[in-house]
Amino acid sequence: KKLSNQLVNCKSDTVLLIEANLDDQTGESLGFVMDVLLDAGALDVFFTPIHMKKNRPATKLSLLVNPAEREKFVRLLLKYTRTIGVRYQTLQRSIMQRQFRSVATTFGPVHVKVATYGDIVKQTPEYEDCAKIAHEQKVALEEVYQEVTRQLTRPSD
Amino acid sequence: KKLSNQLVNCKSDTVLLIEANLDDQTGESLGFVMDVLLDAGALDVFFTPIHMKKNRPATKLSLLVNPAEREKFVRLLLKYTRTIGVRYQTLQRSIMQRQFRSVATTFGPVHVKVATYGDIVKQTPEYEDCAKIAHEQKVALEEVYQEVTRQLTRPSD
Amino acid sequence: KKLSNQLVNCKSDTVLLIEANLDDQTGESLGFVMDVLLDAGALDVFFTPIHMKKNRPATKLSLLVNPAEREKFVRLLLKYTRTIGVRYQTLQRSIMQRQFRSVATTFGPVHVKVATYGDIVKQTPEYEDCAKIAHEQKVALEEVYQEVTRQLTRPSD
Amino acid sequence: KKLSNQLVNCKSDTVLLIEANLDDQTGESLGFVMDVLLDAGALDVFFTPIHMKKNRPATKLSLLVNPAEREKFVRLLLKYTRTIGVRYQTLQRSIMQRQFRSVATTFGPVHVKVATYGDIVKQTPEYEDCAKIAHEQKVALEEVYQEVTRQLTRPSD
Amino acid sequence: KKLSNQLVNCKSDTVLLIEANLDDQTGESLGFVMDVLLDAGALDVFFTPIHMKKNRPATKLSLLVNPAEREKFVRLLLKYTRTIGVRYQTLQRSIMQRQFRSVATTFGPVHVKVATYGDIVKQTPEYEDCAKIAHEQKVALEEVYQEVTRQLTRPSD
Amino acid sequence: KKLSNQLVNCKSDTVLLIEANLDDQTGESLGFVMDVLLDAGALDVFFTPIHMKKNRPATKLSLLVNPAEREKFVRLLLKYTRTIGVRYQTLQRSIMQRQFRSVATTFGPVHVKVATYGDIVKQTPEYEDCAKIAHEQKVALEEVYQEVTRQLTRPSD
Ligand code: NI
Ligand code: NI
Ligand code: NI
Ligand code: NI
Ligand code: NI
Ligand code: NI
Ligand code: NI
Ligand code: NI
Ligand code: NI
Ligand code: NI
Ligand code: NI
Ligand code: NI
Repeated sequence: KKLSNQLVNCKSDTVLLIEANLDDQTGESLGFVMDVLLDAGALDVFFTPIHMKKNRPATKLSLLVNPAEREKFVRLLLKYTRTIGVRYQTLQRSIMQRQFRSVATTFGPVHVKVATYGDIVKQTPEYEDCAKIAHEQKVALEEVYQEVTRQLTRPSD
Repeated sequence: KKLSNQLVNCKSDTVLLIEANLDDQTGESLGFVMDVLLDAGALDVFFTPIHMKKNRPATKLSLLVNPAEREKFVRLLLKYTRTIGVRYQTLQRSIMQRQFRSVATTFGPVHVKVATYGDIVKQTPEYEDCAKIAHEQKVALEEVYQEVTRQLTRPSD
Repeated sequence: KKLSNQLVNCKSDTVLLIEANLDDQTGESLGFVMDVLLDAGALDVFFTPIHMKKNRPATKLSLLVNPAEREKFVRLLLKYTRTIGVRYQTLQRSIMQRQFRSVATTFGPVHVKVATYGDIVKQTPEYEDCAKIAHEQKVALEEVYQEVTRQLTRPSD
Repeated sequence: KKLSNQLVNCKSDTVLLIEANLDDQTGESLGFVMDVLLDAGALDVFFTPIHMKKNRPATKLSLLVNPAEREKFVRLLLKYTRTIGVRYQTLQRSIMQRQFRSVATTFGPVHVKVATYGDIVKQTPEYEDCAKIAHEQKVALEEVYQEVTRQLTRPSD
Repeated sequence: KKLSNQLVNCKSDTVLLIEANLDDQTGESLGFVMDVLLDAGALDVFFTPIHMKKNRPATKLSLLVNPAEREKFVRLLLKYTRTIGVRYQTLQRSIMQRQFRSVATTFGPVHVKVATYGDIVKQTPEYEDCAKIAHEQKVALEEVYQEVTRQLTRPSD
Repeated sequence: KKLSNQLVNCKSDTVLLIEANLDDQTGESLGFVMDVLLDAGALDVFFTPIHMKKNRPATKLSLLVNPAEREKFVRLLLKYTRTIGVRYQTLQRSIMQRQFRSVATTFGPVHVKVATYGDIVKQTPEYEDCAKIAHEQKVALEEVYQEVTRQLTRPSD
């Protein structure tokens, strides 16, 4: 996902939550399905361990998508999972406005996301940048985050 | 549940999701409650492990029922669980049309559910048939499913 | 929370469920957030273990609040957690009417909550009273509950 | 299991814990396996939700058995689950001595297990007795336990 | 991992289980650590959701490794996670002997693992082969497994 | 716990893991038990959600203690939980050496734990110090950690 696509200016929107309980599909197959759904543009995909009837350890698959893409994702779920039905609902969201800036560190430059909501400001080093550095320079991810943090000035600076 | 009761022709409907967080009821008792709710005609009952205040490992009980039966199930939950309140919401569902056919296998006949949604077709051996065979003939459930699969022709055949 | 504030006469109301998925915050910090949210008057706060993309074990934070306090809690979540967006929805609730009475036991007096919903009546010893006794007299919490139960007469007595 | 078989006089023993991680077996099938293992005499069978590589929500199956029956249960796991290997270890246990007595209640007689370990004494109404009453008389399981508790005298009485 | 490296002839061996409880590391970072450990040759890495003191939702990291590589993995855990200590123990394992054969299907050839333990025989289509086909031919993983199963003869054939 | 009690010089030791599966105790009561065990000096107490027979959502209680205190903790578990038996095993541990230093920040001084294991060095701001500041100054815990990190020099400085 290019960073430019993540720029968000609005403060609220709606999102569709689609869910299905799966007791007749393996974990291997659910890992495969997560890839399919993310590739297709799902905003978020997550699994919750649940306990269904007849002593079945099972998984609830949850999917957050753009409400306009409901039918596309319903079809993907019915095709790629074993479920024969999915349930869905529209949720409201409050979201922070996001901008990206580049911060120089001893490991090299790292993008930092600056999120704002009124007077609330949060700065978050981009995971992908930090993970690439940690992987290549064989250090812990936290060590990279700590170095980025040292270089961060307050947003108002 | 008789298979004939499971025949479904519509492609979408609504379902009521009722939930309660339980930190003052034992697992033994929750297993009992699951039976009570399934016997009363709940479409689905499942438990999610949650973590409540004061370091309490707890359970969220979730119940999917026909919206027309809301008050009946609210009363069952208030009577059989320790909660003093339940929350609920109506969800939309997209569901596949289902038909059953019988497939001959070396273990004997097995029902197979054929579910369709537009051009999407899925075939699923019935759990109860396969479990009965696996139990009586002392084989793994997967061995029965594999045998049914070998006998399955494509739906279009 | 004083017991008098917990007296409830209505049988149904609405509640706001606010949720966020957190994969970039530690458990230590989430425990801190639970305190902040309860101190601010959340009706309930609970954590659900989830599994997010890229093999991330994560936590869904769920918050039940008075719908009139939505913006207050949205701001608290955006300030105290690492999320840059939260989702929410309004739920209906059916709740039992509650009264408190005091029951004399060999351990001393204990408050008991009497909850009613039509003909359904449930009596629950107050956790805080029982925990205080169990802590001070070095007995199991269940032993205190059992003693309270022995002293309980049926609500109709 | 007959109650007489549950009488235990020793205070410590050993037990074998056998475990396997399952990411290629469905919840339906794991529910079936639990029955097979309990029927074969496992002391305890339980499932833990785990998160394996490649985003797989999976299940750890744990089995407590008599150490003398190791090979029997290893074979059952290799036959009935999809795993190709199981791991095991011997654990020590400290266990309470148990006796059963019958307690008269307004619902009829109920067995109560009296467990002792030195000066520690615990009384537990038998689940099966209470569940049968709750099912037949359409009351909550807790209501039965509360009635049994009212009739319980202290073990020393 | 090349398939030839997975050929196993022995029926039992030992494995080292290393574990640590993590309440001060994010899910993002734990996903990164899983990659590091698998790249370093861990036999298995898995996460279990746990609930630690002070209301902390946390994660138990479990690692199965060759006992001869203990110090290497202890060091990796101390370097890449936030824990300041790890615990470990040696477990026995019973494992099936494994061979691979190639099966022709309408989707193309697929490797199938044939695992044996005395008279117990299990056949498992290789996940990576099936996932590649499912991804490229845009079909569900189960559809590929079902096609492989149709082509499977019994091992004795 | 005073910081001076946490100074550790050895690099390896043993610890006793005691566990019990609880399906007949409420979450409320388990939260109470966690306090009892921590007050008694347990090194760690944690809960794992499990799924026991008869559709029971349950909790595995795990306790890490000094091996010399086994009988004390066995007795506490048998007294304060509903279990009638506990299992235990001795584990090896590899642990980092720890020292504390004080770091000046714009929020005031904060203790930082410096843990070493050969050439591996990790610095961790003390949770209790940071939580106190975050609580009193009404900022997010991460904001305090980030400020401490900015002030941290490398251990070799
Ligand atoms: Ni099914
Ligand atoms: Ni840039
Ligand atoms: Ni309560
Ligand atoms: Ni038929
Ligand atoms: Ni993130
Ligand atoms: Ni009072
Ligand atoms: Ni596999
Ligand atoms: Ni008897
Ligand atoms: Ni810590
Ligand atoms: Ni080959
Ligand atoms: Ni029991
Ligand atoms: Ni100091």
